[in-house]
Amino acid sequence: MDGFTHLNENGQANMVDVTGKAETARYARAEGRITVNAAVFTAITEGSAAKGDVLATARIAGIMAAKKTPELIPLCHTLLLNKVSVDFRFEEEKKAVICVCEVRLTGKTGAEMEAMTGVSVALLTIYDMCKAMDKGMVIGNIRLLEKDGGKSGHFLAE
Amino acid sequence: MDGFTHLNENGQANMVDVTGKAETARYARAEGRITVNAAVFTAITEGSAAKGDVLATARIAGIMAAKKTPELIPLCHTLLLNKVSVDFRFEEEKKAVICVCEVRLTGKTGAEMEAMTGVSVALLTIYDMCKAMDKGMVIGNIRLLEKDGGKSGHFLAE
Amino acid sequence: MDGFTHLNENGQANMVDVTGKAETARYARAEGRITVNAAVFTAITEGSAAKGDVLATARIAGIMAAKKTPELIPLCHTLLLNKVSVDFRFEEEKKAVICVCEVRLTGKTGAEMEAMTGVSVALLTIYDMCKAMDKGMVIGNIRLLEKDGGKSGHFLAE
Amino acid sequence: MDGFTHLNENGQANMVDVTGKAETARYARAEGRITVNAAVFTAITEGSAAKGDVLATARIAGIMAAKKTPELIPLCHTLLLNKVSVDFRFEEEKKAVICVCEVRLTGKTGAEMEAMTGVSVALLTIYDMCKAMDKGMVIGNIRLLEKDGGKSGHFLAE
Amino acid sequence: MDGFTHLNENGQANMVDVTGKAETARYARAEGRITVNAAVFTAITEGSAAKGDVLATARIAGIMAAKKTPELIPLCHTLLLNKVSVDFRFEEEKKAVICVCEVRLTGKTGAEMEAMTGVSVALLTIYDMCKAMDKGMVIGNIRLLEKDGGKSGHFLAE
Amino acid sequence: MDGFTHLNENGQANMVDVTGKAETARYARAEGRITVNAAVFTAITEGSAAKGDVLATARIAGIMAAKKTPELIPLCHTLLLNKVSVDFRFEEEKKAVICVCEVRLTGKTGAEMEAMTGVSVALLTIYDMCKAMDKGMVIGNIRLLEKDGGKSGHFLAE
Repeated sequence: MDGFTHLNENGQANMVDVTGKAETARYARAEGRITVNAAVFTAITEGSAAKGDVLATARIAGIMAAKKTPELIPLCHTLLLNKVSVDFRFEEEKKAVICVCEVRLTGKTGAEMEAMTGVSVALLTIYDMCKAMDKGMVIGNIRLLEKDGGKSGHFLAE
Repeated sequence: MDGFTHLNENGQANMVDVTGKAETARYARAEGRITVNAAVFTAITEGSAAKGDVLATARIAGIMAAKKTPELIPLCHTLLLNKVSVDFRFEEEKKAVICVCEVRLTGKTGAEMEAMTGVSVALLTIYDMCKAMDKGMVIGNIRLLEKDGGKSGHFLAE
Repeated sequence: MDGFTHLNENGQANMVDVTGKAETARYARAEGRITVNAAVFTAITEGSAAKGDVLATARIAGIMAAKKTPELIPLCHTLLLNKVSVDFRFEEEKKAVICVCEVRLTGKTGAEMEAMTGVSVALLTIYDMCKAMDKGMVIGNIRLLEKDGGKSGHFLAE
Repeated sequence: MDGFTHLNENGQANMVDVTGKAETARYARAEGRITVNAAVFTAITEGSAAKGDVLATARIAGIMAAKKTPELIPLCHTLLLNKVSVDFRFEEEKKAVICVCEVRLTGKTGAEMEAMTGVSVALLTIYDMCKAMDKGMVIGNIRLLEKDGGKSGHFLAE
Repeated sequence: MDGFTHLNENGQANMVDVTGKAETARYARAEGRITVNAAVFTAITEGSAAKGDVLATARIAGIMAAKKTPELIPLCHTLLLNKVSVDFRFEEEKKAVICVCEVRLTGKTGAEMEAMTGVSVALLTIYDMCKAMDKGMVIGNIRLLEKDGGKSGHFLAE
Repeated sequence: MDGFTHLNENGQANMVDVTGKAETARYARAEGRITVNAAVFTAITEGSAAKGDVLATARIAGIMAAKKTPELIPLCHTLLLNKVSVDFRFEEEKKAVICVCEVRLTGKTGAEMEAMTGVSVALLTIYDMCKAMDKGMVIGNIRLLEKDGGKSGHFLAE
């Protein structure tokens, strides 16, 4: 209805029928960022052990959340993920931690939501671990960077 | 360590001990937004039944995710939420759907992560339901608006 | 709205705010039944080890489901259950297995949904374990038998 | 043992081995009903926004529960569902809301339990949202309507 | 890195990419044991109904845990298990209950972690049910007995 | 029955009623170990980044599993944990990694199962991350070291 593939002809939510779709290799990469204050930025980027554990915890949280996507997003299909990775890099001038999540799977629907969910939960975990030092952190720019496989073809964000 | 309450003296992650903290009424409100193209914006804001079900689905997803926060964010304490609500409003000029999640609880730690998680998953659900029409949607500006209760006192975002 | 405590003034779903409610001891008991064919009824009621394991499996499934209620029913509050039990009895003339689930908790809202969910999942488990022998089984008469605690007082089904 | 495919030769529960089964397209449709009092029936069927959100919430709960079936029913296999839908219709004379859940999948075992679970949890959600107005509601007649695919062939309830 | 398949070239955890791996039939069998005092051993091995329900509960817990493995072990892939069984035997002289879990699946990675997790949770469940009688029980010797399928070939513990 | 607090007078499993128990501060500490070959031991204990991420991943897995205990162990009560920590130390001569999990909570039942579950899943995670290098690793000696709070008083393993 009106282009909403998850709504039937009465405008009601349902899981799209993918019975007829082929199982193909699919790939998605999403990113997002959290902007923090100077104290948090220094602690994350210059700390020693501490730094390691904040990002390691966020990475694990993101990977586990990608696997949990069909439990979180009501109309997502359960999929068997072939690979999930979560990586971080820093933008010093903006005091931002950028998170990128890549997902690969072989299945009937794409991996976008898994990658977007992995990024979101990894960033929420950084927020959680740093919120005693900065309550004004902002999570943003969560978007799909690239997608491949399936009949809608290749997508690459500008 | 270095202000990270979730890291012990060796920089290792652990759940903060809240044994000695009092159970008090706590409140948190977070917001975020998803920016969409004109076709999606019209479909969500002017549709009839369709509109209802997209936002109803996202609202339920956000509420259920707030309850799931301790399963998603590794070091969050399990909390008994007294109330969760998820609401949406629109900014036509920016083609944005704004989501606000409010959480109340009586417990030993705050409700910020639950509110932030509720917002994030509600917005991811809108993304999922509209992604066939627009792959360039961006989720952003997820942040804590207000927080009350507990010894760190009242916080109100600028 | 219109007596729906889970809908706000705009008719939108949200978790009821129980912040102001007292924590009291609460009790609920629900029942339901599954009607099976003669072969299944005999196998369940007269079998030896088999019988034990069908009902033991259903009992465990019901208890675990009662604990999972807030994950299943979108607007249910997470509650700390003090006790859950699931019991079965037989009505030979009707070839029915009757399931009763009792739940006790100390909290701000009632235990009805936990008891109803425990019964439902216990009966679904019996269905699952017997469906190779009878696809025509019917689950029914799932209802609240008794409820106590909280400001709405005592309820006893007729 | 005694026709129980989920019990081994000692009468002990285990997940049936489906290694040798072919992956085929499978379909199941189940239904159930909740009988309510006149006030609830009117509120659900004649309300405006309210009506929409009660049923939308129950529909989402049913779809999510169908995906959760292997977590709830101990001996169910995890399956990749191709499609889940949950629909409602009304029987005015009996003050009943009828729920139908359809499930499609490509896999080694059938979709009956997913459809039965989807119906059960959708009806429990209606119970939850209306229980402040009527504690005497009864959920019943939960049964398999149709099943197709797999070696046991087509089943259609009388 | 250093032989750790779950760590990338920077030593960071991620889910191994199995995109290129073939789907093959895989098998794993793991075992473990719990050593208890004489009173518990007698109650479990000589009891009547009681005995049945302790082991039946542990068996169901182990089977359900095997299905939950990807939720518990951060870097495990979600797999569709074809079969899970959990069995117990007794060693009187050592007052030990031995648990064996077998898992079969058709997929791109092995079933070892599912079998190891099934054993661990079954034994933890016995511990839980007997801990009022003996706090000194010890769970041990949890190990892989056999593994087959996949390119690493057959493994049989000495 | 026969000292099994989780079995009723008919020998059937149920969650013990803790309605009448006081909420008190409770503490539990459990330990376990995994014995590995020399290559794995060196990689874990002498590696640089790698070492950090193996143990960090296992630590997070253990903490998250402790919170999941009532989902895994059928008759465990849901509890609100005040603190969970998971730590590791090494025994070079035995090529063993020892894991200790501490849990604190304020509630009506003890924290033993949470601590035991945290240890078990942390060790399973190490197994998972190292199994490409050594399939013969053995997890053992999982036991309660100390327990405090509640009417059964203080317990300290010999």
